[in-house]
Amino acid sequence: MKKIKLLIEYDGTAYHGWQIQKSKPTIQSILEGHILRITGVKSKVIGASRTDAGVHALGQVAVFSTPSMLEPETIGKALNATLPYDIRIRKVSEVNDAFHPRFDAYKKSYFYIIANQRVSSAFLYRYTWIVQQPLERAFMKKAAHAIIGTHDFSSFQGARSSVKTPVREVFSLSIEDLKHIDFMTARFKGDFLKIRIEANGFLRHMVRNIVGTLVEIGRGRISSHEMENILESCNRRLAGPTAPAHGLFLEKIMYE
Amino acid sequence: MKKIKLLIEYDGTAYHGWQIQKSKPTIQSILEGHILRITGVKSKVIGASRTDAGVHALGQVAVFSTPSMLEPETIGKALNATLPYDIRIRKVSEVNDAFHPRFDAYKKSYFYIIANQRVSSAFLYRYTWIVQQPLERAFMKKAAHAIIGTHDFSSFQGARSSVKTPVREVFSLSIEDLKHIDFMTARFKGDFLKIRIEANGFLRHMVRNIVGTLVEIGRGRISSHEMENILESCNRRLAGPTAPAHGLFLEKIMYE
Repeated sequence: MKKIKLLIEYDGTAYHGWQIQKSKPTIQSILEGHILRITGVKSKVIGASRTDAGVHALGQVAVFSTPSMLEPETIGKALNATLPYDIRIRKVSEVNDAFHPRFDAYKKSYFYIIANQRVSSAFLYRYTWIVQQPLERAFMKKAAHAIIGTHDFSSFQGARSSVKTPVREVFSLSIEDLKHIDFMTARFKGDFLKIRIEANGFLRHMVRNIVGTLVEIGRGRISSHEMENILESCNRRLAGPTAPAHGLFLEKIMYE
Repeated sequence: MKKIKLLIEYDGTAYHGWQIQKSKPTIQSILEGHILRITGVKSKVIGASRTDAGVHALGQVAVFSTPSMLEPETIGKALNATLPYDIRIRKVSEVNDAFHPRFDAYKKSYFYIIANQRVSSAFLYRYTWIVQQPLERAFMKKAAHAIIGTHDFSSFQGARSSVKTPVREVFSLSIEDLKHIDFMTARFKGDFLKIRIEANGFLRHMVRNIVGTLVEIGRGRISSHEMENILESCNRRLAGPTAPAHGLFLEKIMYE
């Protein structure tokens, strides 16, 4: 048996997220189907992040164990030759049997893109959250500071979660103003926000709930100094709504 | 009655092209449905270019006549409020009744993007043609020269076309090498080609057939000096295959 590590990129538009679901296409189920076809053996694929339906990934990491004699590189080529074009294997390598893509990660980063304009581009809607009301950046940036550090993030945890602890360390949270987005050699001007978060791990819906709360703050519906109270309350109902999935990108997962 | 001109942007992925077809979603049929709902009157929408299924548009132009008392700006806002997010109205104005979006255009431009790499990004496949074999740019650029000027383009005309004349004037054809494509703040490195064509008009499938022929020349399957003979032959069978629709963008339509 050898353990194969995959670096995977996917456009989440057409999929019901990472994790296997009955009779719905998910990234995990499609990968397992193709690995079975290529190696002739059923393997369970374990991912670093269980991205939700519609969430995109530039750098998802996953592993599977296989008795196959095929070289890792050959498996990667065979996967890219047969997988749908919106799921691509960017790197394949053999790893130590002890390696676990989730438990061994010391840092993960996500980013989220908001199109803060009345009319956005026809091309951007699959990859942004269109927020038409003006957002006060200063309020959002002030509130973002409260998120950084080690906290109990229960207020930002989605329902039906079963983790040992809701404590996570957020290393950074940046809010960047963009005056355009480049898309396939076209440039779309407007007001965009890129919210990027690095942490040692994320709870279910955590990024989307933080973004949803920051947008409520930017709209003036929640005061920026409330962020600290929301965190301390450990009460999901005090935070803002869950931002839509399609603006979210899993960027990178880092290992020692 | 007044005549309203629309500047329209659309991501063609989900649509069966511009022109109305029975029981299939097309840009024209969706626009007509929304205009009926907003104005209360059925109007025929006439477009400048009949883009094929899957082709994208940054600057399609269309007109319709309506007895509605609504201001053009109000119609535009109402359309953007109710249309699907992958069809956007970028500009609305009232025009002279004599204006015709197709006959009055003096120049139209399209561009086509090729990802010339073994493995492309999961995010680019809806907007590029992935050509894995190496393409010899010098051959393609040499052949492109033959296209420029006034010619009978029958060799590049798709079947089931009913135009008065197959003669068109191509003002320019450029082939640009790109070393990356920017997409939603991510940068995908690799070898890309952007083929851009300006003409006074285009026959059915003309851009896609020219691109398909240029790719055959880049692959070395057709010699670059054959391009002239292909044009002169007026024989569709001598040209290359039709390039896939999803790499094509209607860029701009110009009026006096």
